[in-house]
Amino acid sequence: MSSERFTFQLSHTDGRARRGTISMRRGDIQTPAFMPVGTAATVKAMKPEAVRALGADIILGNTYHLMLRPGAERMARLGGLHTFMNWPRPILTDSGGYQVMSLSDLRKLNEQGVEFRSHIDGSKHMLSPERSMEIQRLLGSDIVMAFDECPRADRPRDEIAASMELSMRWASRSRAGFDAGQEHAAAAALFGIQQGALDEDLRRISADKLIDIGFDGYAVGGLAVGEGQEAMFGVLDFAPEQLPANAPRYLMGVGKPDDLVGAVERGIDMFDCVLPTRSGRNGQAFTWNGPINLRNARFAEDKEPLDPASDCSASRDYSKAYLHHLVKANEMLGAMLVTEHNLAFYQALMRAMRDAIEHGRFAAFAADFRRNYLGKPD
Amino acid sequence: MSSERFTFQLSHTDGRARRGTISMRRGDIQTPAFMPVGTAATVKAMKPEAVRALGADIILGNTYHLMLRPGAERMARLGGLHTFMNWPRPILTDSGGYQVMSLSDLRKLNEQGVEFRSHIDGSKHMLSPERSMEIQRLLGSDIVMAFDECPRADRPRDEIAASMELSMRWASRSRAGFDAGQEHAAAAALFGIQQGALDEDLRRISADKLIDIGFDGYAVGGLAVGEGQEAMFGVLDFAPEQLPANAPRYLMGVGKPDDLVGAVERGIDMFDCVLPTRSGRNGQAFTWNGPINLRNARFAEDKEPLDPASDCSASRDYSKAYLHHLVKANEMLGAMLVTEHNLAFYQALMRAMRDAIEHGRFAAFAADFRRNYLGKPD
Repeated sequence: MSSERFTFQLSHTDGRARRGTISMRRGDIQTPAFMPVGTAATVKAMKPEAVRALGADIILGNTYHLMLRPGAERMARLGGLHTFMNWPRPILTDSGGYQVMSLSDLRKLNEQGVEFRSHIDGSKHMLSPERSMEIQRLLGSDIVMAFDECPRADRPRDEIAASMELSMRWASRSRAGFDAGQEHAAAAALFGIQQGALDEDLRRISADKLIDIGFDGYAVGGLAVGEGQEAMFGVLDFAPEQLPANAPRYLMGVGKPDDLVGAVERGIDMFDCVLPTRSGRNGQAFTWNGPINLRNARFAEDKEPLDPASDCSASRDYSKAYLHHLVKANEMLGAMLVTEHNLAFYQALMRAMRDAIEHGRFAAFAADFRRNYLGKPD
Repeated sequence: MSSERFTFQLSHTDGRARRGTISMRRGDIQTPAFMPVGTAATVKAMKPEAVRALGADIILGNTYHLMLRPGAERMARLGGLHTFMNWPRPILTDSGGYQVMSLSDLRKLNEQGVEFRSHIDGSKHMLSPERSMEIQRLLGSDIVMAFDECPRADRPRDEIAASMELSMRWASRSRAGFDAGQEHAAAAALFGIQQGALDEDLRRISADKLIDIGFDGYAVGGLAVGEGQEAMFGVLDFAPEQLPANAPRYLMGVGKPDDLVGAVERGIDMFDCVLPTRSGRNGQAFTWNGPINLRNARFAEDKEPLDPASDCSASRDYSKAYLHHLVKANEMLGAMLVTEHNLAFYQALMRAMRDAIEHGRFAAFAADFRRNYLGKPD
């Protein structure tokens, strides 16, 4: 464990790809990093020691879910999220803003913040930059995300611009709210979130405002909301370089394995996504030759494991025929094993990318990966 | 691993309680033993290495479920149940008879066997002593159970008697069917099942017929079907001693922790039950002070683990508040952790009973256990 609040050390660059280390009190985070999503204080279907054993340095918690259940004040009384879920290493929490928009009912948004009703029991709640900072502090978050609004990328430009400006005012209030939490602020980090959808000028204005406020790290927000990979990569061709080179860059909610490779190639350092865990519960497994659906009858007598060379037992010690059986029978062990395999695959992919950057062969790695994974020449 | 097909060595007796070791090719089984139930080729919500780590020497597989999905012939092509589910140690399989009666539709029972329709897809199947032996052979079972009929204990005596006589004719055909599977028969064991409900005379007739046929072990069948603990213990006051002292005695489908203690006290060596796993999925946890329901609001801020002294991480490293949260949120990890805790509790109970018998203090152990578990003097 480090005595540093937050440092980011870049050790290698290869093209725009970067290899670094974030040091925080609860542990180091090797970048490029993938953060498994622990929505409701659990990475679904995984014990925390197993998440760690697969290589995760940090996980993500969802403010929206946790403020509703078990509740932020209750979590604080129980010793914070780390103690609660038995994960002693760094945790990044989102601000709740995105999920209020996607999950809750009866939202009322104004300059102050958002009022909404819980999707669980209809109870009334509010989130603002100040309350989001307070909740993330009560949870004991290591990396706190600024509270923002994330509009659909296909809205008219004036709407995108107005929303981005609101998010930048909220970023400033988030900074003040975070800094007011003295003991927590001295131990944790705060990331700002760039908005502006697909527009390079808006993205630059947003980046400059964030830099002016000053954050420990910078997220590229407002992507992976249905715009497609090509549009996303288009933004990543300019957005990361608008952000400070000496701070980590986090692409929120991304993504598919080929999204990760393309984003690292464009200078992204951190990711989170529900895809490996959600797919695991649906019987979809990621492999170096692309995703497969274990529900498919062609696996009913397939004696091969998902990855005989893996050091993850879920990938190595169970045949596809067995996983097919478990998935078809809706057995919990099916979700458990495929989730574990998928997280192992994602962490192995991150390790392979870090290794390729260290050896200055990221372009070759990415080409090989795409040829195998997408089944077509790069 | 032993080179023996099947031996049963009694090392200690204490009153009617017995401490022994079954040796088979795939491993030893310390008795009194509890066998976790792996219905559909999985102990629900548990990885097989975790089942073993908690102390299980043997698990149970269900012929009825496995013959329907993935199917016995398919299982044989896939290398048998042990390979399929990644459990290299002994497996006992039931005969399918009991579950045909409790789960399937449109049963037609005659001297030959039972025709029925699958509860999964309505497809037509049949089970007879010969087919049950064949299926258990195809699965690669280590301990094969004779095919029997299990009537409700509250039926008229002449019905119970006729059913018992049918089961004894089927026991004889099971013996012949098992012996016909030459290579498998040379490596596996066959258990007979005593019937006769609550009637001492019928139980004696059944025991004598089984002894006459000759089996490696003997189950007390037809109990735990709604008759209540007092009636069950009443039968166990005479039934085990009607069976050979030099063979293991298996009480099928039992039971609650206090059932196990009372049955060991009466000379039973082996148990299986879905209770620890099924309860685990419902948020019910077994503790030395009795069962508790983690759904209960009184656990919402309970920082204590289920058992701080346990060497099982699920029992020791998570607060009841966290388990309450997971169970309320229907998180898979809740089912996983409470199942693991419950199986750890059951295996710890078996270890404690074995230890007490070895030290000649079973009566004191049982009294202590009941005082704590049932909350009343013995």
